[in-house]
Amino acid sequence: MRASRYLIATQKETPADAEIISHQMMLRAGMIRKLASGLYSWLPMGLRVLRKVERIVREEMDKSGAQEVLMPAVQPAELWQESGRWEQYGGELLRMNDRHGRDFCFGPTHEEVITDLIRNELKSYKELPANFYQIQTKFRDERRPRFGVMRAREFIMKDAYSFHVNAESLNDTYQVMHRTYCAIFDRLGLDYRPVEADSGAIGGSASHEFHVLASSGEDAIVFSTDSDYAANIEKAEAVAPAGDRSSPSEEMAEVATPEQRTIEAVATFLNVDASRCAKTLLVKAEEDDNGHSGLIALILRGDHTLNEIKAENLPDVAEPLTMATDEEIEQVVGCKAGSIGPVNLTVPVIVDRSAAHMVDFVCGANKEGHHLTGVNWERDVALSRVEDLRDVVEGDPSPDGKGTLEIRRGIEVGHIFKLGNKYSKAMNATVLDENGKSATLEMGCYGIGVSRIVASSIEQNHDDKGIIWPDAIAPFEVAIVTLNGHKSPSVMAAGEKLYEQLRQAGFDVLLDDRNERPGVKFADMELIGIPHRFVVSERGLTAETLEYKGRRDEDKQDIPLAEALPFLISASPRNGL
Amino acid sequence: MRASRYLIATQKETPADAEIISHQMMLRAGMIRKLASGLYSWLPMGLRVLRKVERIVREEMDKSGAQEVLMPAVQPAELWQESGRWEQYGGELLRMNDRHGRDFCFGPTHEEVITDLIRNELKSYKELPANFYQIQTKFRDERRPRFGVMRAREFIMKDAYSFHVNAESLNDTYQVMHRTYCAIFDRLGLDYRPVEADSGAIGGSASHEFHVLASSGEDAIVFSTDSDYAANIEKAEAVAPAGDRSSPSEEMAEVATPEQRTIEAVATFLNVDASRCAKTLLVKAEEDDNGHSGLIALILRGDHTLNEIKAENLPDVAEPLTMATDEEIEQVVGCKAGSIGPVNLTVPVIVDRSAAHMVDFVCGANKEGHHLTGVNWERDVALSRVEDLRDVVEGDPSPDGKGTLEIRRGIEVGHIFKLGNKYSKAMNATVLDENGKSATLEMGCYGIGVSRIVASSIEQNHDDKGIIWPDAIAPFEVAIVTLNGHKSPSVMAAGEKLYEQLRQAGFDVLLDDRNERPGVKFADMELIGIPHRFVVSERGLTAETLEYKGRRDEDKQDIPLAEALPFLISASPRNGL
Repeated sequence: MRASRYLIATQKETPADAEIISHQMMLRAGMIRKLASGLYSWLPMGLRVLRKVERIVREEMDKSGAQEVLMPAVQPAELWQESGRWEQYGGELLRMNDRHGRDFCFGPTHEEVITDLIRNELKSYKELPANFYQIQTKFRDERRPRFGVMRAREFIMKDAYSFHVNAESLNDTYQVMHRTYCAIFDRLGLDYRPVEADSGAIGGSASHEFHVLASSGEDAIVFSTDSDYAANIEKAEAVAPAGDRSSPSEEMAEVATPEQRTIEAVATFLNVDASRCAKTLLVKAEEDDNGHSGLIALILRGDHTLNEIKAENLPDVAEPLTMATDEEIEQVVGCKAGSIGPVNLTVPVIVDRSAAHMVDFVCGANKEGHHLTGVNWERDVALSRVEDLRDVVEGDPSPDGKGTLEIRRGIEVGHIFKLGNKYSKAMNATVLDENGKSATLEMGCYGIGVSRIVASSIEQNHDDKGIIWPDAIAPFEVAIVTLNGHKSPSVMAAGEKLYEQLRQAGFDVLLDDRNERPGVKFADMELIGIPHRFVVSERGLTAETLEYKGRRDEDKQDIPLAEALPFLISASPRNGL
Repeated sequence: MRASRYLIATQKETPADAEIISHQMMLRAGMIRKLASGLYSWLPMGLRVLRKVERIVREEMDKSGAQEVLMPAVQPAELWQESGRWEQYGGELLRMNDRHGRDFCFGPTHEEVITDLIRNELKSYKELPANFYQIQTKFRDERRPRFGVMRAREFIMKDAYSFHVNAESLNDTYQVMHRTYCAIFDRLGLDYRPVEADSGAIGGSASHEFHVLASSGEDAIVFSTDSDYAANIEKAEAVAPAGDRSSPSEEMAEVATPEQRTIEAVATFLNVDASRCAKTLLVKAEEDDNGHSGLIALILRGDHTLNEIKAENLPDVAEPLTMATDEEIEQVVGCKAGSIGPVNLTVPVIVDRSAAHMVDFVCGANKEGHHLTGVNWERDVALSRVEDLRDVVEGDPSPDGKGTLEIRRGIEVGHIFKLGNKYSKAMNATVLDENGKSATLEMGCYGIGVSRIVASSIEQNHDDKGIIWPDAIAPFEVAIVTLNGHKSPSVMAAGEKLYEQLRQAGFDVLLDDRNERPGVKFADMELIGIPHRFVVSERGLTAETLEYKGRRDEDKQDIPLAEALPFLISASPRNGL
């Protein structure tokens, strides 16, 4: 491509409303432009990257045996009513009416449509397993779209859905998809981690997220220092402290703690560490058979935080997790939230594993402005129910017994999920099994945020000059910059010749033949992030050399004009392919 | 691809609600499935065709110098309000509200979005001309979606928009796009015609439609027998009859024609040909400066039909064309519509070119139940205004003076259009010209109905067994059918070997390794329309031969096993590439 005939829409200024690096750089490098909140146009330079990501995803999905389809973006409400999601799905579902007043939505995902297709199309276990995918524009009406294409409303997703006659077959395809996702993210040159994710709400038996590691990531992910263990913070198990609980050494005593309403305040007031204070949270319980919903107390160590997903997944806790109101607490306990504790509490108590190891601890006295000190489990208060209730913290032991946990920030770019029969059951999607009996299909679903990957890659690959694309998804692999080519026919001719030579060798080449100052051209090529750069100049031609600089290189180097192609081949990852 | 691991979703029955061949065959061959009215899922087999069409369109657009972009499908109302189309566009525009209640639409076209993008991005004539295109899912809420993907609500379109500092530059790019479209439709193997189209309503200076010729086409297109002249019926000029009008030979006389209200009835009643009767139509005139809208009479030969576009394009006729009501006719003329005529009519009269050549003709007497015979222009009624008002008919002389006109049915698959400054003026899209002055951009737009092309190709390429794809867009170029391969390891091995050989030579191959009867496999491959078919059988292997049959061939032929690849290469159009 000749830059003189191409939209090089670079900008010097960092856009004021772009918070994260990838958003800033995609705007500055002329990759995207905002149309409206959460809606972006892809300019030619950005679209080249997006298409290369798509191609890698497509090639690996095809290799896995998945079959590409394309379903409509606009979906009829009837199918969503059948699955129950028309009511359940919140404001993110963009609903609309057609000219006849019928209800439709702009699909954020396609479980219903594919399940409808497959229940009509497949009749026998012999046609299974089958895995169908599409690469398609989706819409989620995010309450607060942000970070450019990272969390846009309209975005491109690869979504796949697999169908099985039993759970073993689902498991096999799930493993294939896990490996396929690793192959995709490897080829994309991303530093990523597959992590265990919670699958409780949908009732499936397994779920993994694929996270790109980046400080701007919106998710916390957890690794072991010494093993492959990795999970997102919602899922990561906090194991019980080793050994037995120590024996009590203090007597329980009541102390006045006027106006001390938080753990921090109480700990400071009583001069103890927060880890020696018990945090008591009252939440709504599941309704009983009479439709009555009481409260449940959750006890955590004062320095730990409640993991809402873990709490919500407990059968006796109401879902979604709902904190008791101030009125309910007053009514049930007789004091404010800051003074409650497990001793003599009249509601069921569930104690976190770490909290269950506390000795001689402090807790609220269930009496306004008073706490108890020297409290001990069993002696002062029963310990009937211990569960994992908290978020892990750095340094916790890894659940697999190997090493300790580290916490990093991640950007979710993929998610694989065993759906089980959630949709197939609701929508009556069955086939005949080996015995000629009707079997409800088992399903898996597998998503990749295609447009988000473009931004994620930039979060991991940039410097103060701009983007540093991996060769595999760079808009152009190599730039040829002609210096003053408009004044020097020999420079332009040498640039053109090199351009044709590299193109014919299969490289994506941008010939920067613009009538611009050298500094402007260099800055643009660096901002755009092209991995390899050749400079053609009169000085160089005299010596029959070109200047080369890799985007990550500190220094330039002169190479013989005749060696350009072999040099590029050796400098490019294609060399190893 | 192995058929045993692929969704071969063929059906024997012709679907009852599919009216045209392409819709029937796309369903029967397992290319598409209906989700809801005008919404179709593309199954793997159909998507392969769609992607090949896309690729050809993309390659030729790239070659033309156009740059690919991708704009959001969801568009904010504000831009459409700026262009004035938010109000003008009818029920086809799918409008919706986001969670904050803001107005959006699902884009049926992207003039507003691209004009907004370009007015912000381009500043100088030096950056022009520029042509941007996308291949994207569009939505038009058709009142009556029909014919499958031929007239669907959600469809895939290639839309391009070019920007220019003056009309000459627009003209150059328009010519490039005309040539590019011909290259695209040539490569797609379509029998098509570029035809002149009317561009009056948008005010542009030129417009061409590209029609695929097919009896199921919804449009009438017109050609010359002896030249390149082609136009759609709206645009095709009806030239004035050759020579001067003959002299009158009859006296004008009034005759009673009781209850004879149509041209046919009057002609029969008076025993004259319809071509000797004048048809008089009263339509609304443009409002005058006082806001008063009167009537205008349009006179046609009785055997001709009014061309509404031509009438509407006349400056003194109201747009859109509106027929006078019975009440208005009674009030102005004093009789019913069946008895009106130009003689002594009190409203302005515009006479069609052919009608102006009538001699001794019949027309209404402007008196209920009466007509005049022997009427002659000039002698009996003034002939002040002659225009081209009618649709051409077969046998009319071609407007370029060469040959006569033929009329065929066409499916519109492309449209190129000089928009001029319609959008750029409304949206204030300017650049600085060579003199440093602000110049409103000239624009062109260029559409191709990508998904419609798939159906159009089938309309032209099928027989009673199924589809006959051109090699360039066939889902697979060649099928290898193994006969009883599940029983014969040598047949399966030979099939696999041939499969790998042809694949490695670059062919798209479908290995039909299914455990099905030979007849089922042959019928499926023919229905799906794969251009080349090899059969591997035990009998053949004994003789070291394969059976070959081209999809259009009458007969099979045996070819030596070792010759399969060279034979295929010579049989395939790639041979000539």
